[in-house]
Amino acid sequence: MKRSVLKFGGSSVSDLSKIKEIALYLKERTDQGEELVVVVSAMGKTTDDLLRNVGQITSKPNDQDLAMLLTTGEQQTISYLSITLNDLAVKAKPLTGYQAGIETIGHHLKSKISSIKTDLFDQLFETNRVVIVAGFQGFNKEGELTTLGRGGSDTTAVALAAALKTTCEIYIDVTGVYSTDPRIFPKAKRWDKISYEEMMEMSALGAGVLETRSVELANNNGIKLYLAKTLSKEKGTWIVPNEQILEHKAVTGVALDKNMAHVTLTDPSNGAQLLNDIFVELEKEEINIDMISQIRNQDVMQLSFTAKDSDERQLVQIFDQLKGHYHDLTVSIVDHYAKISVIGAGMRDMSGVASQIFRTLIESDITYYQVTTSEISVSCVIDETNGEKATKLLCEKFDL
Amino acid sequence: MKRSVLKFGGSSVSDLSKIKEIALYLKERTDQGEELVVVVSAMGKTTDDLLRNVGQITSKPNDQDLAMLLTTGEQQTISYLSITLNDLAVKAKPLTGYQAGIETIGHHLKSKISSIKTDLFDQLFETNRVVIVAGFQGFNKEGELTTLGRGGSDTTAVALAAALKTTCEIYIDVTGVYSTDPRIFPKAKRWDKISYEEMMEMSALGAGVLETRSVELANNNGIKLYLAKTLSKEKGTWIVPNEQILEHKAVTGVALDKNMAHVTLTDPSNGAQLLNDIFVELEKEEINIDMISQIRNQDVMQLSFTAKDSDERQLVQIFDQLKGHYHDLTVSIVDHYAKISVIGAGMRDMSGVASQIFRTLIESDITYYQVTTSEISVSCVIDETNGEKATKLLCEKFDL
Repeated sequence: MKRSVLKFGGSSVSDLSKIKEIALYLKERTDQGEELVVVVSAMGKTTDDLLRNVGQITSKPNDQDLAMLLTTGEQQTISYLSITLNDLAVKAKPLTGYQAGIETIGHHLKSKISSIKTDLFDQLFETNRVVIVAGFQGFNKEGELTTLGRGGSDTTAVALAAALKTTCEIYIDVTGVYSTDPRIFPKAKRWDKISYEEMMEMSALGAGVLETRSVELANNNGIKLYLAKTLSKEKGTWIVPNEQILEHKAVTGVALDKNMAHVTLTDPSNGAQLLNDIFVELEKEEINIDMISQIRNQDVMQLSFTAKDSDERQLVQIFDQLKGHYHDLTVSIVDHYAKISVIGAGMRDMSGVASQIFRTLIESDITYYQVTTSEISVSCVIDETNGEKATKLLCEKFDL
Repeated sequence: MKRSVLKFGGSSVSDLSKIKEIALYLKERTDQGEELVVVVSAMGKTTDDLLRNVGQITSKPNDQDLAMLLTTGEQQTISYLSITLNDLAVKAKPLTGYQAGIETIGHHLKSKISSIKTDLFDQLFETNRVVIVAGFQGFNKEGELTTLGRGGSDTTAVALAAALKTTCEIYIDVTGVYSTDPRIFPKAKRWDKISYEEMMEMSALGAGVLETRSVELANNNGIKLYLAKTLSKEKGTWIVPNEQILEHKAVTGVALDKNMAHVTLTDPSNGAQLLNDIFVELEKEEINIDMISQIRNQDVMQLSFTAKDSDERQLVQIFDQLKGHYHDLTVSIVDHYAKISVIGAGMRDMSGVASQIFRTLIESDITYYQVTTSEISVSCVIDETNGEKATKLLCEKFDL
């Protein structure tokens, strides 16, 4: 029996009529003899509503309690979808993260999946055609409920596909992966196939379709991912190993990541120990930072990096604490920056891409404040207000 | 350390500001050194909202799926209350029914508690002052989520008090137990103490304050119950063993239970086997029936009983099925009846109460269709439209 994992995000299940449409689609698939594991997120704005309520109570909710609250969102979606499927005579079984055996480690609100029980699924498919799993959630060793953080439902789906050794179909709002956001550059191209690496850069650099963690997990487990538009007949994009893509363009995409904060730290006397303390604290708070540059000039240490605007409050706390120890440390945190990145797995074989990018920006008076490069990407920090303009210019430059 | 179980129902936690008030009250208690186990229901109309959504999908939702959906209501309340308490620096820990180890047996939507793990609580009180438990829910041997049915949160609270060997305070909308519903008879008296038996009759007979199951559970485990108005300074009612009440009035209360269906079955040829089949089916569907009367006259068997209006759909299904077997069975199910009951633990030592009741009803042209009696109560089926009138007349008659 063919078994697949399918994932539908919050906007695909934003109301009961959309849930009905998805149930009818699942019925078509099971009628053709498939066994389906379906991962769903909370309905539309449910999570936002819950967070708004919490905001009325306090600005610093207890993490454990907040995780417990948020998991109710997906639990409601799996219940509604299961009621709908069972009503269509498609035998379905809903499972919370706990029931699906999705064990996690780490921070309650940014947990990572450590293991999944798979025997359970074989047993459930003896009497069911669809097993519905609440995305975004799990439980830790203490039996406490946890959430997986940003893009968590995708991670749930990919981890299930890895555990069940099958493909993973992720249904989203747009038709697959484009060279850049079509809302910014309407002539953007949709790719039929893209490599894990390219997709990871696209994700990490804010293309917004899929979080890096999910793609990394797929890559590590050799799970083929298919990204397509929910309930659309249009073809989506397969994300596959690099060697399965025959011809590479030098540049395959431009990704724009807004809502970035740019952090610069200077300290005239302390070096290695301060750096170590900074990264220990950032790791403890599970703040993801990016575009790290460090320079030392005559004992003056300077460190720059980018982070999400949304982590700014936590960053301020961390550095206020560190200043208690390191009295000469100066910190600047500026928000409203954007990161623009040019990505291409073919880039490693090419030269001159970086200089073409800089020339394009300079010719249009777009200032870049910091640059970092990887083997398959070049990223620049620019003003958020220049984001759309730079995206269009670079897409035209590289014929995307 | 004094440890108590407190229960707050849905209207006591209907919004975040009420939850805040309850949190402040709990803080007062813990500041005085108490350890509290707090059971809460779903917020206000949450359960109704969820059921309304389900109604948009189907009129026959899968029971397992529905139970899973409904449990999210209490899970949200415990999360909000815990966030509020922790924000007030009162260390609190929320537990779902599953996490509290509340194991259940029976129908998914009308489960009964079979066991509770108590070691967990000792462990949690090492670091917490309040443990918050989601009422109304548990899990079965298969690990599926279940709900306890009507009044389920009260049962959760009493079962926890029994397991933890402590008293149980149940906070409600009214100030304790009255001789009858004060909305119907404003001169109704509030009792300081009432016996388990009287309370059970009051509950079973629809006084609406507390379900029979909870009182029965308290009685069986010798748990003292305290019923009082949420956040009120006014004294409530203690529910205690009969021997702790010195003077008994013959009649302590009048209870009115509306929304009753009256079922009458007649079969000219089948006796014991039919009766057995009926009760087996009712038990299987976990339909509570009441006021059972059975008469046999020249082989014609006649059976009458009352049930909740809300079980009517299931009753019709059961009897349609039975008619396939018993071709001569005739069934009449009539709704919009009320049951009025006069209760008093002193009644067993008195005579004439029944005849005073009948005379009162007859003198006011109130027809009664069926009568049943217990050692401490007399109940009559009357038209729902006569309910309030009969309540007032009987309260005046017995000086309540």
